[in-house]
Amino acid sequence: MPPAKSLAQQLAAKQREISVAEFFERNRQILGFDNPLRALLTTVKEAVDNCLDACEEAQVLPDIKVEISKEGVDRLRVAVEDNGPGVLKREIPNVFGRLLYGSRFHANRQSRGQQGIGISAAVLYAGLTTARPAKVTSKVAEEEAAHVVELLIDTQKNLPRVVSEDLVLWDRPSGTRIELVLKAKYQRGRQSPFDYLKGTAIVNPHARFTLVEPDGTRVTYERASTEVPPVPKEVAPHPYGLELGELAYRLKATNQPTILELLQKELAGVSPRAAREILDRAGLPGKTKPAEVHGEPLEKLLAAMHEVPLVAPTSECLSPIGPMLIKRGLRNVLGEVRPEFYAPPVSRPPKVRGGFPFLVEVGLVYGGALPADQPIQLLRFANRVPLLFQQGACAVTNAVQNLDWRRYGLDQKGGQGLPSGPCLLLVHVASTKIPFTSEAKEAIAEDPEIDKEITLALQAAARHLRTHISRRTRRDLAGEKFAIILKILPKLAEKTSSLVHKPVPDLTPVITRIMDVVNVETTVAPVGDTIRAGTDVTNYTPRARVLEVFVEMPPELLPKAQHRPAPEGTDTELGRAWWTLEKLPPSGKVSIEVTFPKGTEVEASDLSWYIAGVDEAHLLGAEPLPGDWDVRLPRAVIEAAEAGLEPLPGTEEAEVDYDAAEGSARVEDDEG
Amino acid sequence: MPPAKSLAQQLAAKQREISVAEFFERNRQILGFDNPLRALLTTVKEAVDNCLDACEEAQVLPDIKVEISKEGVDRLRVAVEDNGPGVLKREIPNVFGRLLYGSRFHANRQSRGQQGIGISAAVLYAGLTTARPAKVTSKVAEEEAAHVVELLIDTQKNLPRVVSEDLVLWDRPSGTRIELVLKAKYQRGRQSPFDYLKGTAIVNPHARFTLVEPDGTRVTYERASTEVPPVPKEVAPHPYGLELGELAYRLKATNQPTILELLQKELAGVSPRAAREILDRAGLPGKTKPAEVHGEPLEKLLAAMHEVPLVAPTSECLSPIGPMLIKRGLRNVLGEVRPEFYAPPVSRPPKVRGGFPFLVEVGLVYGGALPADQPIQLLRFANRVPLLFQQGACAVTNAVQNLDWRRYGLDQKGGQGLPSGPCLLLVHVASTKIPFTSEAKEAIAEDPEIDKEITLALQAAARHLRTHISRRTRRDLAGEKFAIILKILPKLAEKTSSLVHKPVPDLTPVITRIMDVVNVETTVAPVGDTIRAGTDVTNYTPRARVLEVFVEMPPELLPKAQHRPAPEGTDTELGRAWWTLEKLPPSGKVSIEVTFPKGTEVEASDLSWYIAGVDEAHLLGAEPLPGDWDVRLPRAVIEAAEAGLEPLPGTEEAEVDYDAAEGSARVEDDEG
Repeated sequence: MPPAKSLAQQLAAKQREISVAEFFERNRQILGFDNPLRALLTTVKEAVDNCLDACEEAQVLPDIKVEISKEGVDRLRVAVEDNGPGVLKREIPNVFGRLLYGSRFHANRQSRGQQGIGISAAVLYAGLTTARPAKVTSKVAEEEAAHVVELLIDTQKNLPRVVSEDLVLWDRPSGTRIELVLKAKYQRGRQSPFDYLKGTAIVNPHARFTLVEPDGTRVTYERASTEVPPVPKEVAPHPYGLELGELAYRLKATNQPTILELLQKELAGVSPRAAREILDRAGLPGKTKPAEVHGEPLEKLLAAMHEVPLVAPTSECLSPIGPMLIKRGLRNVLGEVRPEFYAPPVSRPPKVRGGFPFLVEVGLVYGGALPADQPIQLLRFANRVPLLFQQGACAVTNAVQNLDWRRYGLDQKGGQGLPSGPCLLLVHVASTKIPFTSEAKEAIAEDPEIDKEITLALQAAARHLRTHISRRTRRDLAGEKFAIILKILPKLAEKTSSLVHKPVPDLTPVITRIMDVVNVETTVAPVGDTIRAGTDVTNYTPRARVLEVFVEMPPELLPKAQHRPAPEGTDTELGRAWWTLEKLPPSGKVSIEVTFPKGTEVEASDLSWYIAGVDEAHLLGAEPLPGDWDVRLPRAVIEAAEAGLEPLPGTEEAEVDYDAAEGSARVEDDEG
Repeated sequence: MPPAKSLAQQLAAKQREISVAEFFERNRQILGFDNPLRALLTTVKEAVDNCLDACEEAQVLPDIKVEISKEGVDRLRVAVEDNGPGVLKREIPNVFGRLLYGSRFHANRQSRGQQGIGISAAVLYAGLTTARPAKVTSKVAEEEAAHVVELLIDTQKNLPRVVSEDLVLWDRPSGTRIELVLKAKYQRGRQSPFDYLKGTAIVNPHARFTLVEPDGTRVTYERASTEVPPVPKEVAPHPYGLELGELAYRLKATNQPTILELLQKELAGVSPRAAREILDRAGLPGKTKPAEVHGEPLEKLLAAMHEVPLVAPTSECLSPIGPMLIKRGLRNVLGEVRPEFYAPPVSRPPKVRGGFPFLVEVGLVYGGALPADQPIQLLRFANRVPLLFQQGACAVTNAVQNLDWRRYGLDQKGGQGLPSGPCLLLVHVASTKIPFTSEAKEAIAEDPEIDKEITLALQAAARHLRTHISRRTRRDLAGEKFAIILKILPKLAEKTSSLVHKPVPDLTPVITRIMDVVNVETTVAPVGDTIRAGTDVTNYTPRARVLEVFVEMPPELLPKAQHRPAPEGTDTELGRAWWTLEKLPPSGKVSIEVTFPKGTEVEASDLSWYIAGVDEAHLLGAEPLPGDWDVRLPRAVIEAAEAGLEPLPGTEEAEVDYDAAEGSARVEDDEG
């Protein structure tokens, strides 16, 4: 055993710097490369995230191609290509061959990639497992030809090593393609590139994705929207997010001559008045040179910044998906599942967490072919990127598990844990700074403020679900009752009539009295060269009604629709059309038809029917008009119109009729 | 919107390097600093881990002191001090003020710290939240005075910035102390420094820990062992863990003149014969210069290395705790819980995963004051460090949850998830390279080979638990039966005797026939100036017995014990003593006493009693001799001895006696 004397020196002799590339090479599980399946997914994800970010910056509708092919027993070739702005030749080696190098880390705005690690990590992993260089092809608009650069990473130095360079012609204005050969394994299903692209398509409905699988299968996700989301604005940091060390650094590094100017020009949310109030509280003259503030005055300055009310951080730096596109994205990808219910998506207002704005969005889909006896499907997203691993370690999962879903109509053992039911839940967290649990960006770390927002959004969506489920239950019960009445009453009437040797009476008034509903029946079916979405509205209430019928569909469908009768009005922006049924007498029925050309992608769940003029308790098969919609006819007009309508003759005497017939039939109104 | 042309250039202009300190400052949750509670724990943990590593390297019994005190509203001062070898003055700034700098990253052996991130991250966080420098005091044995260095981290450069330097006298031969002021919160309980030190004391029974809490409370964990674990040996990398990229690098960087020499000298497990076989298979002459191997020959070389059978990696680079110290560590800390059962700890043989040796150890404690109606307590450890966060994301948790504990006597809903019951489970994974899920080193990433070993170790421990629970159940039943018989029989006999006007017969032979056990009753109680552990062995079987009685206790207790009668022999190393009871007749009873001086820390669960000479079915209150122990008397000798012993007169006629008494008592042997 060496004496302690030499030991400190021995230890000192061993001390050395560790390159960040060496570190990650050794700890590749942190970056998401710990096994061949996950390595493939991470590679595809990092490459596609870069493509989407680049296209967004260039305001181009992304057209992204992912090709995966076999390359020996345990190797795959992965190529990912975009139509973005391209990368300048001189930047290619650093962007793809150096960890912690990038353009988005210091920009205070939402983007998928931020750390300057992702794609270089894939290059590192490929080199490590196959010793094959990455091949990057990139063309910028201003040059004629594309550059092809082959490179490896020198892990000891964390620097790119260019193996070859070339020029090629490429038949697109601009774009980037990266090709890697790596130890990897392809498999469809959970946590696969297939799954990842599906999720990505949901939250990026403006992008088009093509996946070519190793067996040659080609999967395409077409875009469901042609709007490029606006580039989130880069904003100055907000004082609420500053900590002492960071403030001290800013004071040293600034070019502003005075502390007053620094406050106003380099920080967000500080008005001239607020700036002066901050300095007053801190006891600092406005002309103080920033570099001179340290020690106690520095602490006072920060405290004052946190005390004085400031304008909240703006959310221009965020890029939410928005309720409409969440719904459209879900529909686009969930077509084959034909869910019975899409809850109105919830998009919470932006909040601030340590000076960094964030917001939460939730989509919820229920029923259809979603499995009823399994845990719900939870789709987690951060800055429009699906999170496929580490579900158990994620703040989103935690928030879902801590909500008592039994109150909202789902099964959940003990009111804790993932609920069960035919339900799919989409949760999107957007922020300029997502607190991921590791560099692989697979789970969001616990944070009380993010947790609160997720919970509020979940509750809002869950309330819609509860309303839907209770309505459906009510409708199902009423529907059953209706079916029974329509089946039994005529037989009873027939039998009774034949016993007393009287003619069978008209049953409509009786049915009307028993049911007391406006019944709406909707069908969507191909008819000849068209797809016909028809709605029959029957007034099974004992008095005449003035009703308004509304239909809502995805706005792009409306121009293709033929209506009969012609609607009273349409709103092309919101995808709505409406009709007024002036006088619908008891037992009266009106049909409204909406017809689409053959081949139109439309199905029952695309059309939502709403009825105004009858309260929810007397409405079957459609929803009452949502509270925030305009009722075209004011309530007073409807009431006045209805007041002028006499009850249908016979509806008052329906029961008397039967009594007169001496029938013994006694129909219970109560179903039990 | 700018045209695509300038965009590529705009983007290029923004590209820049990100310092690793900047990266972690922004992503501090990755390092375990996302809230004041966790920041404190991580700081203490990183500092203490360093202390333990340093003391182990110096082969010193660690004496570690952690002082936490208030420093303003939301700040704490944390000071951690050790008696290790100290750090040379010139190395202090880099060791404490630079991320990714250290001595253990490149050493292929087990240690707590490896990444050169931990303590510098704490310094970074302290500077960020309070702008206060870290104060490091360190003395090496060869210098008279200690150096005091105050430093901050320049995050933009990831370099230390020394604020002040000084010399002080310090009354210890060598050691290091670090003091930090940081935004933090102290709270006892789960995931607290208190909890962390408790866990650390369990798996480091050779260390002494003192914790001074902010309110002045002083908690000390004394050492339970005075053996310093051996320093794990640094070993060469094993070819089974090499990947192509790494091999290519080694071939370039080596000083060996030929590939044959490289194989034999720089890699572990490659014998001269194996080296030649590898080169034959790869088609490479032994004299090839290493730097000349690339492309296809390189791939062939690696393939050959993986095909040719090699000596498995040695486990000298590992430092398991070992079964004895696991038990002692658990006892030391779980004293107040007084568990009824410590399963023999399981220490699995080392395995290899991607060329890196690892091993798994499991300890299991059951009963006593452990809560019976809650999920079991799971203590996770990696390289002797407790893992307190991210339980849900950890491979250890996963393995525990996937085992069907119902088969081993614990409650578990659906045979999945954390089981419930009065049970504490300790799982230790030791490796030269633990695949943590993030830099905070709070959870082990999923890996099929680690998972398999954990599962095997859990199953082995769980089998002990099952045996214990079934024995206890059996013993409880037999005990009840015994109690009933001893209570009822005399009354029956008395009643019957008085009815038939005969004297009450001697009941011992009847009891003996009904019970048919050797009963062992143990008590531990203070008697006068001593603590007396007494055992009464009663032969309630119908024939005489030759028995061996063994007691086992922690080896350090044995020298303090007084035995009566004098034991036949003792084993001071294993802490055992034994007696032979030559002829114990039916109903015969022998008392053995083990006495300790007052003040000795000893309790019932410290002494395990074992009996040889009677099979398990006829033994009550003690365990049969474990299979791997030496039976002092060969079976044949016992049988011969017993053969010479006549059954006690009366035992044959016990029932006849009763019949003769015309008693109606009929004692059922069956308890149901």
